[in-house]
Amino acid sequence: MSKVLLMYSNGQPSLVHVERLKRVRQDLSVAVADSEEIAVRHAADTDVILGHRYLRQVLPHVRRLKWVQSTAAGPHHLLSSDLRRVNPILTRCTVFSDVVAWHAFTLALSLLRRIPEAVKAQQQGVWAHSPFDMLPFPQTAMIFGVGCIGRELAMILRKNGLAVLGVTRKYSPEADAVCDELFCANNSWFEHLHRADLCFITLPLTKSTSRFFDETVLRALPRHAVLVNVGRGGVVDTDALVSILQEGHLGGAALDVVDPAPSSSSDPVWSVPRLLITPKVAVFHPEYQKKLEAFIENQVIRYLRGETLLDIISVDKLAGDR
Amino acid sequence: MSKVLLMYSNGQPSLVHVERLKRVRQDLSVAVADSEEIAVRHAADTDVILGHRYLRQVLPHVRRLKWVQSTAAGPHHLLSSDLRRVNPILTRCTVFSDVVAWHAFTLALSLLRRIPEAVKAQQQGVWAHSPFDMLPFPQTAMIFGVGCIGRELAMILRKNGLAVLGVTRKYSPEADAVCDELFCANNSWFEHLHRADLCFITLPLTKSTSRFFDETVLRALPRHAVLVNVGRGGVVDTDALVSILQEGHLGGAALDVVDPAPSSSSDPVWSVPRLLITPKVAVFHPEYQKKLEAFIENQVIRYLRGETLLDIISVDKLAGDR
Repeated sequence: MSKVLLMYSNGQPSLVHVERLKRVRQDLSVAVADSEEIAVRHAADTDVILGHRYLRQVLPHVRRLKWVQSTAAGPHHLLSSDLRRVNPILTRCTVFSDVVAWHAFTLALSLLRRIPEAVKAQQQGVWAHSPFDMLPFPQTAMIFGVGCIGRELAMILRKNGLAVLGVTRKYSPEADAVCDELFCANNSWFEHLHRADLCFITLPLTKSTSRFFDETVLRALPRHAVLVNVGRGGVVDTDALVSILQEGHLGGAALDVVDPAPSSSSDPVWSVPRLLITPKVAVFHPEYQKKLEAFIENQVIRYLRGETLLDIISVDKLAGDR
Repeated sequence: MSKVLLMYSNGQPSLVHVERLKRVRQDLSVAVADSEEIAVRHAADTDVILGHRYLRQVLPHVRRLKWVQSTAAGPHHLLSSDLRRVNPILTRCTVFSDVVAWHAFTLALSLLRRIPEAVKAQQQGVWAHSPFDMLPFPQTAMIFGVGCIGRELAMILRKNGLAVLGVTRKYSPEADAVCDELFCANNSWFEHLHRADLCFITLPLTKSTSRFFDETVLRALPRHAVLVNVGRGGVVDTDALVSILQEGHLGGAALDVVDPAPSSSSDPVWSVPRLLITPKVAVFHPEYQKKLEAFIENQVIRYLRGETLLDIISVDKLAGDR
């Protein structure tokens, strides 16, 4: 008998999904946690955790956990001493890389064409050209993090005529294949920041990427550059970004992730000029829930059959990336 | 001695531009009209009109007008009995076709990814997923008007993986080359409206395109379709569009042109759900004024040398397009 505990980050699992999981094997017990309390109560006899919503709280109490299926493409932020001690199989989910890449490209274009200014003028019922200081059409994009999302984004940018400079921790032929220039594990990327008309962040959150985009890095971007973060909020020093935008540096910035989250509706991050925020929706599309659930059902079938899981990313790898 | 009258629609000509025009030939007189009154006062002895801002008001008073350089790519809306009577050489300006096409694509992507909803949530200081019912990634786009802008747009869409259905008044090999399917001068396009995930309008305003997008056409688009108009406002029945959006039909619509212009800040066009308005800025980019002025200076040099002008579109052609 195995027990599976569901704790998805974006809404509850559908009933048919839970039913389908129960039917995978007769002796499979399926529990859904919609609160931390319920998650912790199921911890002790859970073999498999699907989703990572209450993972940090649950881990101290697990006794037979063998596998964690994260819903993220970059689950590095889940690394903890408990995760290293328990050391389950860890799998991620790369099904939505193209959706996130398209969201990132849309954010950049929206800033270039001043769509947020148009929405604000529209809300005031004002028909006026004046606030529309459009940005030049970009020639060169820099992508920090050339994993599954970064590579999708590189392909979109190149087919639209941009040159792509990739920055990655470690050389990979897959990353090399989609970038015009690839910078690895050294600081030479810094000297190329001034070339970036667009700068995309798709990095996971690790010790070495935390607040990586600090004031020095942000200031090294061209004055007209557009910055887009669809990776992890903690990679950007939000306070530094806000003050740099207030000073008039950067053509614009878009954040789909903000960490720490804005403390209140009066947080300056909401109102600083040329900053566009989408509330962690880059992964969303009409088929999101359906595709996520189909992917996870397939993974559970593989697991119970003893087949190799897809998208394995070992806990050791997360620790190594620090 | 020749007299040139400048009356641009988007802001005043730069001083260097006026100086450069004066230096093209010593006996050239250059006047700038920044009001209807001034324009009319110069009408009688003007040989060349650059820009079309007060053209309708000036035409009854011209006596030696030989050439009108419009700043529009589709100047069909300038057709009048006065223009036919005077029958000057008419030239248009297609320099910004790619800029307009990129604006149109950006508008479509912004609607697909619900950027206007994000801006509104941001203005309220709200971090919430809930209003983000993203639209499916489009497979098929329909472009009404496969002129210089429509063709640029078709190329952008196709390199991003969309199938393009073009609708044009009259077959042209240039249009055929950039569309997967081309519909000409008949009504078969109507039966294909249901295939359009995206529907772009780049049509000029003529008798036959006026209110072409009426309730019947708009309702024949799929419920999830996104409509984008970067052509002329009069091509769309705005009232019909507003009520259709209010009913929940169409995934979204974006208008860079609205005709008649919204009467006040309480006009329902400003606040109807899923409608994004940009105030006729599709043509704008940081080099707009510079490129426009360089193009026009080149045209004036050609004219005074007796060379063939670029981008000629005869008044007869406008009349024929009716």
